[in-house]
Amino acid sequence: MMRTRPLKVALLGCGVVGSEVTRIMTTHADDLAARIGAPVELAGIAVRRPDRVRAGVPAELITTDATALVKRGDIDVVVEVIGGIEPARTLITTAFEHGASVVSANKALLAEDGAALHAAAGQHGTDLYYEAAVAGAIPLIRPLRESLAGDKVNRVLGIVNGTTNFILDKMDSTGAGYQEALDEATALGYAEADPTADVEGFDAAAKAAILAGIAFHTRVRLDDVHREGMTEVTAADFASAKQMGCTIKLLAICERAADGRSVTARVHPAMIPLSHPLASVREAYNAVFVEAEAAGQLMFYGPGAGGAPTASAVLGDLVAVCRNKLAGTTGPGESAYARLTVSPMGEVVTRYHISLDVADKPGVLAQVATVFAEHGVSIDTVRQQGKDGEAALVVVTHRAPDAALSATVEALRRLDTVRGVASIMRVEGE
Amino acid sequence: MMRTRPLKVALLGCGVVGSEVTRIMTTHADDLAARIGAPVELAGIAVRRPDRVRAGVPAELITTDATALVKRGDIDVVVEVIGGIEPARTLITTAFEHGASVVSANKALLAEDGAALHAAAGQHGTDLYYEAAVAGAIPLIRPLRESLAGDKVNRVLGIVNGTTNFILDKMDSTGAGYQEALDEATALGYAEADPTADVEGFDAAAKAAILAGIAFHTRVRLDDVHREGMTEVTAADFASAKQMGCTIKLLAICERAADGRSVTARVHPAMIPLSHPLASVREAYNAVFVEAEAAGQLMFYGPGAGGAPTASAVLGDLVAVCRNKLAGTTGPGESAYARLTVSPMGEVVTRYHISLDVADKPGVLAQVATVFAEHGVSIDTVRQQGKDGEAALVVVTHRAPDAALSATVEALRRLDTVRGVASIMRVEGE
Repeated sequence: MMRTRPLKVALLGCGVVGSEVTRIMTTHADDLAARIGAPVELAGIAVRRPDRVRAGVPAELITTDATALVKRGDIDVVVEVIGGIEPARTLITTAFEHGASVVSANKALLAEDGAALHAAAGQHGTDLYYEAAVAGAIPLIRPLRESLAGDKVNRVLGIVNGTTNFILDKMDSTGAGYQEALDEATALGYAEADPTADVEGFDAAAKAAILAGIAFHTRVRLDDVHREGMTEVTAADFASAKQMGCTIKLLAICERAADGRSVTARVHPAMIPLSHPLASVREAYNAVFVEAEAAGQLMFYGPGAGGAPTASAVLGDLVAVCRNKLAGTTGPGESAYARLTVSPMGEVVTRYHISLDVADKPGVLAQVATVFAEHGVSIDTVRQQGKDGEAALVVVTHRAPDAALSATVEALRRLDTVRGVASIMRVEGE
Repeated sequence: MMRTRPLKVALLGCGVVGSEVTRIMTTHADDLAARIGAPVELAGIAVRRPDRVRAGVPAELITTDATALVKRGDIDVVVEVIGGIEPARTLITTAFEHGASVVSANKALLAEDGAALHAAAGQHGTDLYYEAAVAGAIPLIRPLRESLAGDKVNRVLGIVNGTTNFILDKMDSTGAGYQEALDEATALGYAEADPTADVEGFDAAAKAAILAGIAFHTRVRLDDVHREGMTEVTAADFASAKQMGCTIKLLAICERAADGRSVTARVHPAMIPLSHPLASVREAYNAVFVEAEAAGQLMFYGPGAGGAPTASAVLGDLVAVCRNKLAGTTGPGESAYARLTVSPMGEVVTRYHISLDVADKPGVLAQVATVFAEHGVSIDTVRQQGKDGEAALVVVTHRAPDAALSATVEALRRLDTVRGVASIMRVEGE
C-alpha cells in the first residue's frame, strides 16, 4: 500500500556529504520508497557555489537561494549538511515554520542551540533528527534515545573525533611528534587545512554535549563541557604511557556522579590501558562505550566521518522522519526532564599521571609526597629516573577530585626542588 | 504535559528476565513515566508456578491464568518473556486481538513465525517489538531496522550466543577439550542443564534468521538457516587455528551474494584471524559486525544474555510501544518487500581449512591436489606433518562455493591414501 504522491526533500549543502546523499537518493530510490511507504523526491539543492557542484548531482535542482527553497511551502523534509551556526540555524527554524521536518548533521549548532531548535520543532509539530552529528554512521543517538529509554545510563566514554585519533594513532605506532603526525594527517586528507576544531577538541566537545544531554535527559550545552585539546601531547607522553601499559586517546567522557544527581562532560587526552577495547581503535575510526545500569557495558564502533558513512546516518533519519510524516506523528523529541546539575571539571573524580622535573637530591620525594598528602590526593605509584643532577619523577595517583589535583599541582610548582611539571594526564578506562 | 491515566502492562513469565523487568518498572517508575509521557502500571504477571515467584515481585499481581490476563480488555502492552513456541504464540496473537501491543524476547517464535505475527499485529493496528530476542542488551534490531533504513546492508557477521562463546573461549585459553569446557560453563551457570539449543546452534540460528530478515528486507525462516553446532570442535582444531594465527568462534553469518539478488544465512564454527575484533570477544559477550554499502563496517558489542541486560532491551521496547500507543500510531513493522532468494549453503562462497590423515608416502600430495583442482577449488597453502608412516595434511583453500568443497571432500574420502578427514572448518573474517 504505497502513497504515490512523493515526499519532497530539500537538501541544504552539497559537499562531500550532500553529494553522497544525492547519489543514494537517486540510485536507491525504489528501496527508499518501499521502506518509507511513499516515494521521496529531491526537490531542490541549495549551494553557495553552483560552479563547484559535483558530478552526478542534477543541475536543474541547484539553487543558490536556500531561504526561498525552504520557504517553497511544499517541502516535507529539509536535510541540512551545511554545518556551522549561521545560516544553518535560521534555515532550520524557517523550515519548521513552514511545516518541514529537519535532518541535520550539524554538531556545532545542536550543541549550542539544541534546546531552542527542539522547542521550535515541537511547536510546529515537526521532527528534528541528527544521528549524523555524532560519530558518523555509528548508530548512537537512536540507541541512547530509544533502545536505552528504559535504562539508566551512567557513563558514555568514547573516541568521537577521527582526525585526532588518526594523529594519536600515528604518534603511538611510529614515535612521531604531534606536528609530524598532523602533517601526515593533513596530507592524507584526515585533517583540514585549519585543524583547530579537531585538535583543540571543539568538535569532540560539541558531540559530548549532545551525547550527555540525551544520555542523562538533561540539557548540556557546549559551555558545560570541559575541553582540552591534544596539541600538547608529546612523544615523551607516549613513552610514559607505554611504561604503564597504556596508550593515549582523546576521549569524550560524560558521567553521572556517584550521588546520581549531577553529571559532568569533558574532552581531553587521557591514558587508557592497552587492554581496553578503545586502545585498539585505529586510524580515523570512532568507538563509544555506554555503561547503563541494566544493560551493562555496550560498545559501538565504526567510521566516524566521511561522505558515505555520514550520508548513511542522514538517510536513516530521513526514512524515519518521512515515516513519521506519513503517520501524522513525530518521533521522540528532546528529553530533558531530569534537570540534573552539570558540575564543573573540579568535581570530576579520576586518576592522574604526573611527570615532574625535579632536583636529583635526597628528600625530594618526601617533599613531593607531602604535598600530595596535604591535598588529600593518594599516590598509587612513583617512578624516579635520575640523570646529571636532575631527575624525572612520575607519580600516578589513586582516584581524586580534579580540583584537588589542580591544587596539588599548583603547590608542587611552588616547591624549590620542582623545576617544572612536564605533563599532567588523566588515566581512564580502568 | 503528562497523561495521568496509566498505560497497563501485562507481564507473561517471571523468571530471570521477568523479575528484572518488574524490578525496573517498580524502582524507575518516575523515569519511565517522564520518558513515555504517561505512567505505566504493571497490571498483572502470569506465571506457571506461583510458589516460585521471586522476592520483590508484588504477590497481588500474580496469576496462573495468562489467557485471562491477556483478554482482560484494559491491557495496553503485553510483555512476553516465557520463551518457546506455545503457549507464547497463542497468547501473543490473543493480545493483538484485544488491541495490545507486544514486546517479546522470544527468538525461537520470531524465527519460526515472525511473518504471521507481524501480520497479526498490523491487522489490529498494534506493535510487535523484540530487541531482546537477539544479543540481549545490544541494540541491533533497532539500528538495523531504523538507523540503517537508508543504507544497503551486505553482511551481518557475529557472535550471538554467549554460552558457546564462553566454551570456545575456555578451550582457546586453557587448551581444554569441549566436554571439560562445557562442564565449567555448566558449573558457572553459563550453560543450561540441557545445552542442546546453544551448543547445536539452534539459538544462534534463530537469531540469524531474525537478523537476516531485517537486514535484507526479506523473509528468512529458521529452516532457511544452515546450522552446524560446535560440539565437534577439538583441542586439535584450536592448535591448527593457532598455527594459522586464528581462533575459533561460533559465528552467525548473513550475506548478500555478489549478484545482489540472493542472500544466505548460516551458523557454524569458523576460524577467524586473531587480528579480527571478533577474535577478542571473551567469555559470554556477544558482538556483531554489520557491513553496509554507505556506512562501511560497524560493530556492536555487549552482554548477550542475562536478566538485567535482557530486561534493558525489553524496557527500551516498552517505552517505544507506549509512546506509539499515546501517539495513536505504530512503529515500523515487518519489511519484506525485497523478496530476495534465500540460497542454500552450497552457494555460500568462503575459504576452508581441511585436516586430512593420509598415508605417509610419495605422491599423496599430488593425488590430493588433483582432487581439489578437479572440483575447481583452488589451494592457498598446504602443510604436511609426518609421523610413523602416517601424515597429517592441512589444506587451506582460496574462496570457493560450499558445494564444490563438499564434493571435494567426498572425493578425498574415496582416495585409498586418505585414511580420514579429521576436520573441515571454514575460515571467515579476512
